[in-house]
Amino acid sequence: MLRFELLRTEGHARRGRLTLNHGVIETPIFMPVGTYGTVKAVMPRALEEMGAQIILGNTFHLWLRPGLEVVQRFGGLHRFESWSRPILTDSGGFQVWSLGESARISEEGVKFASPVNGDKLFLTPEISMQIQRTLNSDIVMQFDECTPYESKGRITTERQARSSMEMSLRWAARCKAEFERIENPNALFGIVQGGMFESLRDESLAGLEALDLPGVAVGGLSVGEPKEDMRRVLAHIGPKLPAHKPHYLMGVGTPEDLVEGVGQGIDMFDCVMPTRNARNGHLFTRFGDLRLRNARYRQDERPIDETCRCHACANFSRAYLHHLDRCGEMLGPMLTSVHNLHYYLNLMQEVRDALDAGRFADFARQFAADRARGV
Amino acid sequence: MLRFELLRTEGHARRGRLTLNHGVIETPIFMPVGTYGTVKAVMPRALEEMGAQIILGNTFHLWLRPGLEVVQRFGGLHRFESWSRPILTDSGGFQVWSLGESARISEEGVKFASPVNGDKLFLTPEISMQIQRTLNSDIVMQFDECTPYESKGRITTERQARSSMEMSLRWAARCKAEFERIENPNALFGIVQGGMFESLRDESLAGLEALDLPGVAVGGLSVGEPKEDMRRVLAHIGPKLPAHKPHYLMGVGTPEDLVEGVGQGIDMFDCVMPTRNARNGHLFTRFGDLRLRNARYRQDERPIDETCRCHACANFSRAYLHHLDRCGEMLGPMLTSVHNLHYYLNLMQEVRDALDAGRFADFARQFAADRARGV
Repeated sequence: MLRFELLRTEGHARRGRLTLNHGVIETPIFMPVGTYGTVKAVMPRALEEMGAQIILGNTFHLWLRPGLEVVQRFGGLHRFESWSRPILTDSGGFQVWSLGESARISEEGVKFASPVNGDKLFLTPEISMQIQRTLNSDIVMQFDECTPYESKGRITTERQARSSMEMSLRWAARCKAEFERIENPNALFGIVQGGMFESLRDESLAGLEALDLPGVAVGGLSVGEPKEDMRRVLAHIGPKLPAHKPHYLMGVGTPEDLVEGVGQGIDMFDCVMPTRNARNGHLFTRFGDLRLRNARYRQDERPIDETCRCHACANFSRAYLHHLDRCGEMLGPMLTSVHNLHYYLNLMQEVRDALDAGRFADFARQFAADRARGV
Repeated sequence: MLRFELLRTEGHARRGRLTLNHGVIETPIFMPVGTYGTVKAVMPRALEEMGAQIILGNTFHLWLRPGLEVVQRFGGLHRFESWSRPILTDSGGFQVWSLGESARISEEGVKFASPVNGDKLFLTPEISMQIQRTLNSDIVMQFDECTPYESKGRITTERQARSSMEMSLRWAARCKAEFERIENPNALFGIVQGGMFESLRDESLAGLEALDLPGVAVGGLSVGEPKEDMRRVLAHIGPKLPAHKPHYLMGVGTPEDLVEGVGQGIDMFDCVMPTRNARNGHLFTRFGDLRLRNARYRQDERPIDETCRCHACANFSRAYLHHLDRCGEMLGPMLTSVHNLHYYLNLMQEVRDALDAGRFADFARQFAADRARGV
């Protein structure tokens, strides 16, 4: 099931509420990424404590490990990974393209060799729907082709982008048919493609709207294009997305990208940036980013961010976290991942509070000024 | 300060209570090891939740990283690592011997090159006391020479063991003098050495008793000797340790070793085994040990140990933990470390309960029968 209520708007920005089979989500929301059925280095209960309302799983990875027969035995991903709130799964498409030359794409689907054990595998819109049914994710993404910004140094042409976008549309129709045939009780989202071309984005959206899926995502951004191209496409398509459905911007991005996305009408975001950067000592704070490996933090008794209420900031200093990183101690990424995820989730809480109070524009200005101040 | 109350005895086994500057410890107790100021892969608050009363830190490691000027700034190890309960630190001796040929030992102390940056360093009984004062650990261990069981394939002779033991005794006196000179308000423990020779163990203990330190440890066991030698030495020296002082068996051991140690009058244990084994998929359970990497656990929906109340067993299956290990996900060692430490701490809680009820002998029989049953 999916029910979406639009509670309030300010310009293109929206404050909403999304009801799914495993619970209710207040939007705009950031969704932590749990590729292999775990948000890296973070306990599920810590995610709950920091207010994570929904997390992601990756269909491609979970298909290979642990494999469907294992997840099936647990009745889906929720019980397997001990997460009772909603889950969104991607379609596996993005990962398959990432395999590069070893993947062979046809109208039917994609053939490739398993990077785990070399097995020959075939992923199609129908198989993606079947896998996601077994995972029992609350939000199922259509199998699509994520149009690249460039390949082998050549920027994707409009013709290439059109061909790719049109195949994604045909695959969306096959996904919908299979999703209905197997009686999936969850919600299927379509994905707007079309590369950097506004007219193709319009055509993609129109094609998806003809299928009338309950949610719509914007894919193919943050794939290596200059920031100004991302901004241009988002500013074009965001405000055109259907008002009564949730809008999901896939794989984006920095804190600044999130606030800008909200301003263009986006409700949902995911990105590996908070967890991946945490493991590399790149920490997000209200007053800009902090590079934990810098020697200046060796004796710094302050928390990462004095305005932050996460478990890491409440209990540990920059000096201690710097020390853990230097010693390669696991507690380092455990604490920095908690902090960075808390930062992203709290940022979205502040965005929701601002929208509730009708002062999102003010908030966005203050946010930009704070972040530019520097740690 | 140190106050030790002997609450109850059963044979040589003892139920006691140890009061230190940072709190009270119920004995017998297992102490998790936090080498670099962190019990690997475990949050301090998780340690509190599972009932850890005291943890270890390693003087040698902390001296090199983060270095004393950093710990000094935090007023000691407690605030630096955010642990408010008691801490015991070793003397650095054991680690220096582990450096092997690159360490040069003389009556004065040990010269060696830092394994971190190659700096030439010198560790003496006095310097060890000064470092441990800065760390502000509740229990300070004397600087000693841990007599090896063998070196270069040759078993240590009685003459070698005597020479080593006698130097450790002279170092104990220097440690006591320095500990008093710098007015350390915590408690200094002596260490009984003497290798596998009962008469040398007796001489070592007599020499230490002349110094009248408030606690006494047994060192130089679990250093590669056959189990029967460890048992023989422990059965000889354990019951001779002074009744009114706490008894600490260093670096030991398996669950069976702990229960046996309690039966020989030991009050305190430490070992890296629960955390190190957890990271290698070797899990302790009431009914024997479990090798998580075994393919039989791939689809096993049961918890690690159905009688265990730890966070891992309450929420996650063997299949999920097997999957995390296979994918190299950090949540794997995070959860298995919680389980193994909880197993050790709970085992000692059960030992204390049995001693309180005057049925330790029955407990030890049931423990052995359960462990032999198999998972």
